[in-house]
Amino acid sequence: MTTLPWSQRLQRAQHALDQKTKPPGSLGQLETIAAQLSAIQNTLDTRAEAARAIVLAADHGVTSEGVSAFPQAVTRQMLQNFSAGGAAINALCRSADIDLQVVDCGIAGEPVDGTIDCRIAAGTANFVNEAAMTVQQYEQAISNGRALTLKAARDNIQLLALGEMGIGNTTSAAAIVASLCNADADTVTGRGTGVDDHGLANKVAVVEKALHQHAAALPDHALQCLGGFEIATMAGAMLEAARHPIAIVVDGYIATAAALCAVHQQAECRHHMIFAHQSAEPGHAIALARLEATPLLQLNMRLGEGSGAALAIPLIRAASAILTDMATFADAGVSGKLE
Amino acid sequence: MTTLPWSQRLQRAQHALDQKTKPPGSLGQLETIAAQLSAIQNTLDTRAEAARAIVLAADHGVTSEGVSAFPQAVTRQMLQNFSAGGAAINALCRSADIDLQVVDCGIAGEPVDGTIDCRIAAGTANFVNEAAMTVQQYEQAISNGRALTLKAARDNIQLLALGEMGIGNTTSAAAIVASLCNADADTVTGRGTGVDDHGLANKVAVVEKALHQHAAALPDHALQCLGGFEIATMAGAMLEAARHPIAIVVDGYIATAAALCAVHQQAECRHHMIFAHQSAEPGHAIALARLEATPLLQLNMRLGEGSGAALAIPLIRAASAILTDMATFADAGVSGKLE
Repeated sequence: MTTLPWSQRLQRAQHALDQKTKPPGSLGQLETIAAQLSAIQNTLDTRAEAARAIVLAADHGVTSEGVSAFPQAVTRQMLQNFSAGGAAINALCRSADIDLQVVDCGIAGEPVDGTIDCRIAAGTANFVNEAAMTVQQYEQAISNGRALTLKAARDNIQLLALGEMGIGNTTSAAAIVASLCNADADTVTGRGTGVDDHGLANKVAVVEKALHQHAAALPDHALQCLGGFEIATMAGAMLEAARHPIAIVVDGYIATAAALCAVHQQAECRHHMIFAHQSAEPGHAIALARLEATPLLQLNMRLGEGSGAALAIPLIRAASAILTDMATFADAGVSGKLE
Repeated sequence: MTTLPWSQRLQRAQHALDQKTKPPGSLGQLETIAAQLSAIQNTLDTRAEAARAIVLAADHGVTSEGVSAFPQAVTRQMLQNFSAGGAAINALCRSADIDLQVVDCGIAGEPVDGTIDCRIAAGTANFVNEAAMTVQQYEQAISNGRALTLKAARDNIQLLALGEMGIGNTTSAAAIVASLCNADADTVTGRGTGVDDHGLANKVAVVEKALHQHAAALPDHALQCLGGFEIATMAGAMLEAARHPIAIVVDGYIATAAALCAVHQQAECRHHMIFAHQSAEPGHAIALARLEATPLLQLNMRLGEGSGAALAIPLIRAASAILTDMATFADAGVSGKLE
């Protein structure tokens, strides 16, 4: 097919969906996703079998502020768990026939066997005191992310789910969302993996301090000043997707913070994003609203790892099947609506 | 394992889930479903691969009141479409590896090739004037439904999705929900497959007339007086599930009306019900609240056919995988929460 503008691609898909043997619009959000996938792939013969989940991991200097309910060592231990196949994302990917890659974007300590090396440094700097990463580190992370998507394109991946692991990274996400959505720290900061009331108050204070520290550089340099290596790498992967027929399946709060940064930099990459689930973190709704995104799932989950994105993939495959695998009213000899 | 009371089965499952390498409760509703499945199957080694969707179809005398946007002939045409493999439910079942059965519970005209014969009559009576079915017809439908679940149990089915097709059946569902939830007709009556404002007002008036006509027999005889053959057959299938390690995946508004009737008759069968999605029909939220049910999906769908239930099945399989296919903190050597 020739190159059509985005809005015409969507219209073409919706017209095709309206011929299928169902009342117009009766499959709701599934039809929206089918049309988006059709526009991304620029075809009515969409495909969604080839799915990959990437879990991007990194450590965060801000953990020294006591922002997490779990010790920093858990980032590394969970990478070992991913490699051994025992984590939630492993079980979910096996359950739904999704290829899984684990990418080390910069954790503390030695590399973990079985992970892909995109290491920038052994964790970011503490962004309460200084920029989380140098400009050079930031650019390297973006470039690493672009390379991951490029590899996925070469592997003919159609759905690329992005998730993360990094003790401390909901604090980074909260600071980014506060900056890019112009929201107060206490509205975007949640309990993460489970801090108590005291921990939550401390986390809000940390985000406020960081926003004050980097005020002159925000919002344009939010990702470099407040981000994590995994968040910047995710943003790079999202930016690259705009150049390929790949749908990015955005996981929870941290992945959505990366999406905000990517869209802030290049608005068109929003077209390639399918939002998987609404996390229990309170800032997520604010970030999603800014992106005009309605996630497919609301299951009160707050794990990360790409778990929500993995769960959304069968729904996206189903949406594709509606477009490619259903009869039309004319094919099936079914009567239309009474006028 | 020995027979444990339901609440202890749930506790046993939640205890097992809390050992897995994730913050406690962080998989939200997925954990609730995993625990329910564990209790239904009375094991921690749950299985959810073997899934069947049954589409139950029937015609409705009340269509002569002009309550639907589509002609009655569409019920039969859609059965032919199901048999030919061209409908949404066919595409969704192929997409998610779900066995599909189409059951004729009593449509107008000749049987359709490739459907299972559970025919009671060529459509119900118009329940505005008389009971939708005789007591004998009602009992036959319940018995037919029980037989469908018994067959599923013999086929070692773990997840049994129930959906429907029947022009006019949202009117029947609305009348049942109004009766069993003690709700006003206008709060439970929606546009179905797409009636306009005039059509909606007519539909509300029809439901009000029916409730008045059968007032003496309601709510206990709601299913016989106001139901459809497919709704009564679904209720029978749900009642039987309580005797087997089978989870019933309840589709949208009409299936939930059947669930209300089944639970009204035998409260324990509620344990075996997983609610798939919240339909766009306004009465669905009222019926779900009465059943204390939180559906897995809210995708603004209003098709029926079991489409929402088919979409929920990969999520239920994922929930099962969380319980059976993840490492524990002890297995994986991952640190727990900081105290």
